[in-house]
Amino acid sequence: MSQYWSELVKGLSPYVPGEQPQIPGLVKLNTNESPFGPSPKAIEAVRLAAADTLRLYPDPQSMRLREALADYHKVTPAEVFVGNGSDEVLAHAFAALLKQPRPLLFPDVTYSFYPVYCRLLGINHETIPLDAEMRVNVSDYLGRGGAIIIANPNAPTGIALARAEIARLARERADVPVVMDEAYVDFGGESAIPLIGDHPNLLVVQTMSKSRALAGLRVGYAIGQPDLIEALTRVKDSFNSYPLGRPAQAGALASLADEAYFQETRAQIMQNRASLTASLTRLGFEVLPSAANFVFARHPKHSGQAVAAALRQRAVLIRHFSGPRIADFVRITIGSEAELMRLTDALAEVLAAPGN
Amino acid sequence: MSQYWSELVKGLSPYVPGEQPQIPGLVKLNTNESPFGPSPKAIEAVRLAAADTLRLYPDPQSMRLREALADYHKVTPAEVFVGNGSDEVLAHAFAALLKQPRPLLFPDVTYSFYPVYCRLLGINHETIPLDAEMRVNVSDYLGRGGAIIIANPNAPTGIALARAEIARLARERADVPVVMDEAYVDFGGESAIPLIGDHPNLLVVQTMSKSRALAGLRVGYAIGQPDLIEALTRVKDSFNSYPLGRPAQAGALASLADEAYFQETRAQIMQNRASLTASLTRLGFEVLPSAANFVFARHPKHSGQAVAAALRQRAVLIRHFSGPRIADFVRITIGSEAELMRLTDALAEVLAAPGN
Repeated sequence: MSQYWSELVKGLSPYVPGEQPQIPGLVKLNTNESPFGPSPKAIEAVRLAAADTLRLYPDPQSMRLREALADYHKVTPAEVFVGNGSDEVLAHAFAALLKQPRPLLFPDVTYSFYPVYCRLLGINHETIPLDAEMRVNVSDYLGRGGAIIIANPNAPTGIALARAEIARLARERADVPVVMDEAYVDFGGESAIPLIGDHPNLLVVQTMSKSRALAGLRVGYAIGQPDLIEALTRVKDSFNSYPLGRPAQAGALASLADEAYFQETRAQIMQNRASLTASLTRLGFEVLPSAANFVFARHPKHSGQAVAAALRQRAVLIRHFSGPRIADFVRITIGSEAELMRLTDALAEVLAAPGN
Repeated sequence: MSQYWSELVKGLSPYVPGEQPQIPGLVKLNTNESPFGPSPKAIEAVRLAAADTLRLYPDPQSMRLREALADYHKVTPAEVFVGNGSDEVLAHAFAALLKQPRPLLFPDVTYSFYPVYCRLLGINHETIPLDAEMRVNVSDYLGRGGAIIIANPNAPTGIALARAEIARLARERADVPVVMDEAYVDFGGESAIPLIGDHPNLLVVQTMSKSRALAGLRVGYAIGQPDLIEALTRVKDSFNSYPLGRPAQAGALASLADEAYFQETRAQIMQNRASLTASLTRLGFEVLPSAANFVFARHPKHSGQAVAAALRQRAVLIRHFSGPRIADFVRITIGSEAELMRLTDALAEVLAAPGN
């Protein structure tokens, strides 16, 4: 700490992302990246963006990308906002919509960045406990709070909320902004995007990092009625006019145009998830029902921390979170078949080892 | 406006960037881009980053890039912060350092994003008038204010402050954070980076958009003692853990390694600036002494707005700012020799036309 720090910065508790070690041969199942590369068309588009035109600023409004996203999701470009990864989009949504006089509501077990944004932006929040099966119960969000954010599927549980439940929440809480964070929705969840026409309070946030395998490019977006998008745009244009560089805009645009690759890779991940769930169950794990590209699982005899540490020694990286209700669990990203075989072999070894 | 907007968003007055029209044949001298492409090595590095590895998150700490910047500027990696363009770096510096109980000080004529950040972040500020020659006078910043930010060279005037003056400011105001925004310093200014060892309150912000011709890639950085860098990092990790994608980190790294290209292109721009200044003077303009990649000039008989509008009709884009003291002026980016010839030909025509 320094005498030059603002009071604000003194009070922060920054988010800690999963590690990104550069260890050759590592099976990396800790940050929910795709085991497949991005669409070859996206790679080619980034390659073509590597040109003299990098001397020019990108389009600050990302119009072509927003038009393509609008076409894809059957909305208008005025209903689309893009940002430097969905973390930035979420940050702007917290400032523009979720900062309200009454406290913001979100589940007690969810994306751990939410309380971090609250600290940064001076937002009061209340957490709502997941139910006994680790599910979000929409009824718990009625009649209280100044705004709501829910990850669907939730992280790190992977459990999804049905679209009808989201519609009920948006309708019953038409008095406040409701943000659905759909980072993982393409792996089996039901997106709330078709609901935005009927719900002026509903904002849906998605990312190209997971299902489009573009974590290295940093592209996220939000969809909602034009009033909500304008609020995000006002914050963005008070913060950084040019959030997406030329390679990012080009790569994202090309990815969207390759529907076949998108469908094929997400189907493969859902298939690998089913296999992994079966293997983990055979090994004695309880696995929560996941609609995401990861599973959240616990073993009756081995702590989450011990499992993660033992796997790390075998060059397999998964994620463990400390904290009430989740410390028993580990979160495992759905990798390729070969990676998941390495994982289950290592797990079998770990569980069989004396002292574990 | 909408009932769902936060009070914060209602009070914003967003920054308006220079236009980025897609008109073929346009001579674009309005946003201070480089007329030269980036280093071919930077282009090649971005091309190589277009690969399957885009599926993986980038290094959230941008360690290799920070190490290279540290080597280049003769500091340590703990003294380097990188962000998604210098606008993002500045935004974090406003939150982390410049938000103080007493008002922030900056010149009345300067980068128009500064008051926008203040609105977003709830920072009181006072503007200090430039002197009669449109210069920053360091004495005006002594004995008042809670923090200071000065663009050096200043924008849109282009006038630079000597390093000895910055040292005096940092020393006399050792009680508060002092941020030097050096977006244009490579075109003839004296950077304050060599001063940071002696001044724990001094943060220097630079960008790769101008002198390294990478506006399309979005890379900015700050250099200061580790305590100041830690403050920025805390804000960054409360906002977006992964601000720079893989292509941006790779391109920036390669650009830094091509010193010959950097020196050659910035020298060429300084030479073109001298020619343009001479041409404008011949056409009757008063041109402020510029150490930047633009000039700020006014004509005794033609308003800035009229000049800019008439040039636009001739497919030459320059920038005009309204506001006290600067409305008479136009800001012209230093383009290539061919672009500047198009500009001066068009200007000669405009000034000769009846009714202008």
